[in-house]
Amino acid sequence: MPGTNPLYKAFETELRVRPDDIDMFQHVHNSKYFDYVLAARYDQMELNYGMSMERFMENGYGWVVKAVHINFKRALMLGDYFTVKTGINEIDDRGCRVKFIITNKSNNKVSADGWFDFVMIDINTGKSVLIPDDIMEHYMI
Amino acid sequence: MPGTNPLYKAFETELRVRPDDIDMFQHVHNSKYFDYVLAARYDQMELNYGMSMERFMENGYGWVVKAVHINFKRALMLGDYFTVKTGINEIDDRGCRVKFIITNKSNNKVSADGWFDFVMIDINTGKSVLIPDDIMEHYMI
Amino acid sequence: MPGTNPLYKAFETELRVRPDDIDMFQHVHNSKYFDYVLAARYDQMELNYGMSMERFMENGYGWVVKAVHINFKRALMLGDYFTVKTGINEIDDRGCRVKFIITNKSNNKVSADGWFDFVMIDINTGKSVLIPDDIMEHYMI
Amino acid sequence: MPGTNPLYKAFETELRVRPDDIDMFQHVHNSKYFDYVLAARYDQMELNYGMSMERFMENGYGWVVKAVHINFKRALMLGDYFTVKTGINEIDDRGCRVKFIITNKSNNKVSADGWFDFVMIDINTGKSVLIPDDIMEHYMI
Repeated sequence: MPGTNPLYKAFETELRVRPDDIDMFQHVHNSKYFDYVLAARYDQMELNYGMSMERFMENGYGWVVKAVHINFKRALMLGDYFTVKTGINEIDDRGCRVKFIITNKSNNKVSADGWFDFVMIDINTGKSVLIPDDIMEHYMI
Repeated sequence: MPGTNPLYKAFETELRVRPDDIDMFQHVHNSKYFDYVLAARYDQMELNYGMSMERFMENGYGWVVKAVHINFKRALMLGDYFTVKTGINEIDDRGCRVKFIITNKSNNKVSADGWFDFVMIDINTGKSVLIPDDIMEHYMI
Repeated sequence: MPGTNPLYKAFETELRVRPDDIDMFQHVHNSKYFDYVLAARYDQMELNYGMSMERFMENGYGWVVKAVHINFKRALMLGDYFTVKTGINEIDDRGCRVKFIITNKSNNKVSADGWFDFVMIDINTGKSVLIPDDIMEHYMI
Repeated sequence: MPGTNPLYKAFETELRVRPDDIDMFQHVHNSKYFDYVLAARYDQMELNYGMSMERFMENGYGWVVKAVHINFKRALMLGDYFTVKTGINEIDDRGCRVKFIITNKSNNKVSADGWFDFVMIDINTGKSVLIPDDIMEHYMI
């Protein structure tokens, strides 16, 4: 994946457009691409990084988004199946930048790409915290 | 499925909770159950009734909801897999009542049930229309 | 409002359709009517019943929906202003039934009506609780 | 507004957080900020640029988003009132870059800022088109 740091693995999740994702232009509403990346990332936390968001939250932690950049290339449509490939680009003790590519399975073309900056927070205070070593290990793959 | 008319078949679709479906109470937001039934129904139009919503719309038709009734029994949570079973209860030349049961796969318990009343519309006028015989046939199974 | 119990007052909130509420049929998506009633009800908790949802939640309580019934009469469109009138129909020490009417301000016609059954929960356990007397008083108006 | 082109005016729309905008972290879900900017922009098309999105669409045109960049600074919470200030930064015959700042009215602090790249499309083909002169005039203010 262009722009992904070769130090870190990339993972892929397959999802499908839901009817409630479609907007007045009869394609997927722009803000839903954001939600698709989030859904893929949660899935990959559980399956690929070995630490689900549910477990994160039980431990009092959460990941929140500090910045996002999305390029919309070819709109997804009703019923489309697509993949969301994500990979860490940079990580430090506060957070990480995750790159993504959304690909439409019907034509294998890129639908959208971009990146998210995540920071780890204490879920009770809402403040950002240093990523503990034992959690960091999950992401150093 | 209780309340389903034995004259008509029931069909089942498996879906998964997306993170953007979760609300401030940390369970699936009530209005999303509505969207889950819709997603299942679109899936079943394509796979089970042999006429996708996309094809419907290309022919100038749409299904719109006239009334809905939902009983919320046990909340779905982040990451849950669930099934949406639906079946026609009554149908006439204007529309149909579809019953549904949403079941959480993690414990096999009913999460929500209820029904939708759909009517067929001309997508250009937005007015309800008589269901043509060739379309009605798709539902008489 | 038809069906509202004359023992209890009805309140009205004005809202406006947001672009992200519009679906592929170019009218407000059905599940958004649910969210409109919720928004109105939260507004009225604060302004009319003197106890905001935020304060409820700080005290460890929440209102959750047990059942909903909506009749869709005339679709709201992009940019429409509308009112949501709600009133308690029945209340006991577990919860209440709230009736609602959504009226389009552009033509003063009913867009949707129906009712919600709410129960009070302990926000930490997620279980339903008896409504304390001091909270009940807020609703006996 | 930092980064706005002084050649073009900036406009402001006041909105309020809806309960269905809140996510599992009990603040406004990230993708909703996108929808808030869109809602403000539609409002300003009508009130400030003298050409509503509805009129655009009746004429066979639409605006679609090609890229978006959002910095999340301080989360909006349940019930918050906020303003969305937007202004054109650059415009050519294909589209424009719009900058925005979302400010929380309760403390007058910036909640999020960033920009959107819009292109004009023919709503029937979904393809980008040159902005006609008579439409361009609406934006040269």
